[in-house]
Amino acid sequence: MTLTGEMLLGSRRKRGQAGHFQAADPRTGESLLPEYGISDDDDVAQAAGLAAQAFYPFRTAPLETRARLLDGIADNIEALGDTLIERAAAETALPVARLQGERARTVGQLRRFAAVVRRGEFQRVAIDSQQSDDLRLVKTGLGPVAVFGASNFPLAFSVAGGDTASALAAGCPVVVKAHPAHPGTSELVGDACRRAVEASGLPEGVFSLLYGERETGSALVAHPAIQAVGFTGSRAGGMALIDIARQRKVPIPVYAEMSCINPIFLLPGALQRRAQALGGEFVDSLTLGCGQFCTNPGLVIACAGDDLDTFRNAASAALADKAAGALLTRGIARAYREGADRLEQQPGVQVLARGQQANNDGQAQPLLCQISADDFLASDVLQQEVFGPASLIVVCRDAQQLEAVAGALEGQLTATLHLADGDTALAGRLMPTLERMVGRLLVNGFPTGVAVSAAMVHGGPWPSTSSPLYTSVGDSAIERFLRPICYQNFPTELLPAALKDDQ
Amino acid sequence: MTLTGEMLLGSRRKRGQAGHFQAADPRTGESLLPEYGISDDDDVAQAAGLAAQAFYPFRTAPLETRARLLDGIADNIEALGDTLIERAAAETALPVARLQGERARTVGQLRRFAAVVRRGEFQRVAIDSQQSDDLRLVKTGLGPVAVFGASNFPLAFSVAGGDTASALAAGCPVVVKAHPAHPGTSELVGDACRRAVEASGLPEGVFSLLYGERETGSALVAHPAIQAVGFTGSRAGGMALIDIARQRKVPIPVYAEMSCINPIFLLPGALQRRAQALGGEFVDSLTLGCGQFCTNPGLVIACAGDDLDTFRNAASAALADKAAGALLTRGIARAYREGADRLEQQPGVQVLARGQQANNDGQAQPLLCQISADDFLASDVLQQEVFGPASLIVVCRDAQQLEAVAGALEGQLTATLHLADGDTALAGRLMPTLERMVGRLLVNGFPTGVAVSAAMVHGGPWPSTSSPLYTSVGDSAIERFLRPICYQNFPTELLPAALKDDQ
Repeated sequence: MTLTGEMLLGSRRKRGQAGHFQAADPRTGESLLPEYGISDDDDVAQAAGLAAQAFYPFRTAPLETRARLLDGIADNIEALGDTLIERAAAETALPVARLQGERARTVGQLRRFAAVVRRGEFQRVAIDSQQSDDLRLVKTGLGPVAVFGASNFPLAFSVAGGDTASALAAGCPVVVKAHPAHPGTSELVGDACRRAVEASGLPEGVFSLLYGERETGSALVAHPAIQAVGFTGSRAGGMALIDIARQRKVPIPVYAEMSCINPIFLLPGALQRRAQALGGEFVDSLTLGCGQFCTNPGLVIACAGDDLDTFRNAASAALADKAAGALLTRGIARAYREGADRLEQQPGVQVLARGQQANNDGQAQPLLCQISADDFLASDVLQQEVFGPASLIVVCRDAQQLEAVAGALEGQLTATLHLADGDTALAGRLMPTLERMVGRLLVNGFPTGVAVSAAMVHGGPWPSTSSPLYTSVGDSAIERFLRPICYQNFPTELLPAALKDDQ
Repeated sequence: MTLTGEMLLGSRRKRGQAGHFQAADPRTGESLLPEYGISDDDDVAQAAGLAAQAFYPFRTAPLETRARLLDGIADNIEALGDTLIERAAAETALPVARLQGERARTVGQLRRFAAVVRRGEFQRVAIDSQQSDDLRLVKTGLGPVAVFGASNFPLAFSVAGGDTASALAAGCPVVVKAHPAHPGTSELVGDACRRAVEASGLPEGVFSLLYGERETGSALVAHPAIQAVGFTGSRAGGMALIDIARQRKVPIPVYAEMSCINPIFLLPGALQRRAQALGGEFVDSLTLGCGQFCTNPGLVIACAGDDLDTFRNAASAALADKAAGALLTRGIARAYREGADRLEQQPGVQVLARGQQANNDGQAQPLLCQISADDFLASDVLQQEVFGPASLIVVCRDAQQLEAVAGALEGQLTATLHLADGDTALAGRLMPTLERMVGRLLVNGFPTGVAVSAAMVHGGPWPSTSSPLYTSVGDSAIERFLRPICYQNFPTELLPAALKDDQ
């Protein structure tokens, strides 16, 4: 298809009139055609209104129709072939192989949710007709959902990513606010969604796609028809949406995945056995995708000693070899440089190594620093994420101080323990703290790379996300968009399909 | 046991020093001994601190220990016998038979959650070891929970009510802020909890009981150790706690059940067949427990005509026969009189009938009013709950206007349809609106009386509760206090019991 620069209000294409913007190739800074028109408040109201109209017919349509919609979106995305990958690469500077993998994950998620829908267990049907009243419970969709595309996963956390897939699976129409860093990728995937909705015979309002920045997003979250929000991005961005959602006449949940630093604990036994190898593996994880994963390891915590020196030297040497890479946008590159400068300038921070120099304003030079645990514990700002390939090693006097550092950390998506045989007792002492802190705990691995599995948790305590009760990856991501309704003594003809006796 | 007027900080009794108060018999206004000391910020910090210490040992103790704790509390409450019922009757003016029923419900809830714990399904264990990583998910307790006793259910929504039972079942220590209207009942039940904790061998901090009003409650919700809040009460009270919870460094969920008016729709066919009988049944539901149920029917919506006249006359006659009853507190009685006066004075409101006159300041005279749908739709205040035995009939021109009234209603715990054969089409048209509006839908019944069942939903959209995703009654009430954690490639010895292979 030819890109048009137009939003989708249901099935209708429209050029936004509230301004315009273009994507840029982060590798060169060059603008990419076409121009995208920005959606205004009327566009937001139209998209939300169509979603509200579509809600009842969509959530009461047969589950098979809903499943086919999800399958149809997946098929349409695959059918876009290289067109999609090439545009996404031009807009994000992410390598083709990574984007192909992300596409596989994205269509996999959609088909996985189609299977979840077909199984029907997510409805948690409970029927109790033994007491004097006939009570029947089913979980049903919450209502239209606003989804914000994320810059760092232009496919898997964007227009038809996990939030959209799980909201549609729940029977909730979706209005996407495309991330302005990849509008063309968004248009391609949005059109794949539009065509799948059309083929399914469902109302057009099941899916709309808007363009814009903060103003468009704010209007969308504030619209009374919207009943929940899915967001992955910065802490400031997430908090702004949460504030808007709270100030509505009817407050709504914002499922925001904000920022975190994913601490890695290198326990003494593991360091003794594998310090050299761990240094290299850590740097590979740190620089993967130019450090732009939500699960990027921004903090390493270990006890001082020869083994830590070995790790540090290995990591420094590995980092020095790493090329500067193009970040997703010039804005992110600027924020990275500012964040890295701020990190270097904190009291007690020493630079251990830098990667190869940046060739232009869009690139990030990897950075590895260290600090004593005393200085780390005295700082208010060192837990702030520096989005990109920067990390900080916290050097502890002893295991007791390592436990103190663990206890001082904010909520995180992940924490990782590197262990060998002698480390079990210390690991056991850390567990209560780590379990309170995170959504996912890893042993002897690195947190980058999130498998889509029924057992995955991509979520965690504040401020890593807005609520530790949910995951945004995996089958139970659908729970965010469902609520229970009980039907008491209802005649069969008025019951939802899932609750009828002849089901 | 002899009442002491002391709070429980874990197993330790302490007399509060931040002031004192006494319960009063709402029937006579007479003060009841002993004096209760009010908990100060240090007491709150101690209770929360003990809860934080108890959290890890409690949530990792065998499920059987947790189940026995719940059973033990139930046994201890039953063993209090008439002492509990008599004190509760003196503090609340609720009839003995009602309190006996409420006690049965309360111990039933506790034992039901013990069974939920023993089954273990609530942990939602998922194990995926087929991919390259071994991923294991379990839902675990969120952390210490603050529970606010409700005035209108001195047993079932108070010290050891549904919030406490479900939080303990989730493995979360509980700090209760007793409702000041029934401190003696609270002390008796609190001591039943304390003894059960002691007998279980669990840490004392699993349960604490504080006394006070807004200040004590605010300090409790603001305390960093508290991770969730359960509240049933007024809209103003719930909103105040929600604000405090949001302003914390780490915001936490407040599960607040606030206020609603539980609309009853009398469809034309049902009115034609049963208008007379419905009038009497409605008034019985309205005046049950002196109108102090969360599910009290505060609004009746029907189309004008002879059948509605019949209903109205029957209801008016039935109401005129109803005695004035003692409300839970003098404060509630005052608020009822103010609310009833405000209702009468709204433009277009006509008084249809009053119950028998009050004999004293603590009693409520039942009240039934009517208004045209046009006037109702023009009003901003007629959806405000009048807590007590007052209700309003909204007279619609036709079915279309009845649908318009339905569409204008706020979120509710329940909505009820009275139907006969010819009403199915109209009921079907109302369903999308009603399903969006409520947590429980009833046909041909009345919403008072909430069965404790796996299929029950006691919850609903804002402002009836703070979130439509949950129920505070029924097995899934436990979900409010659980969050998922994923363990990736963990050695068996560090896994939680539920995730070990040999389970």
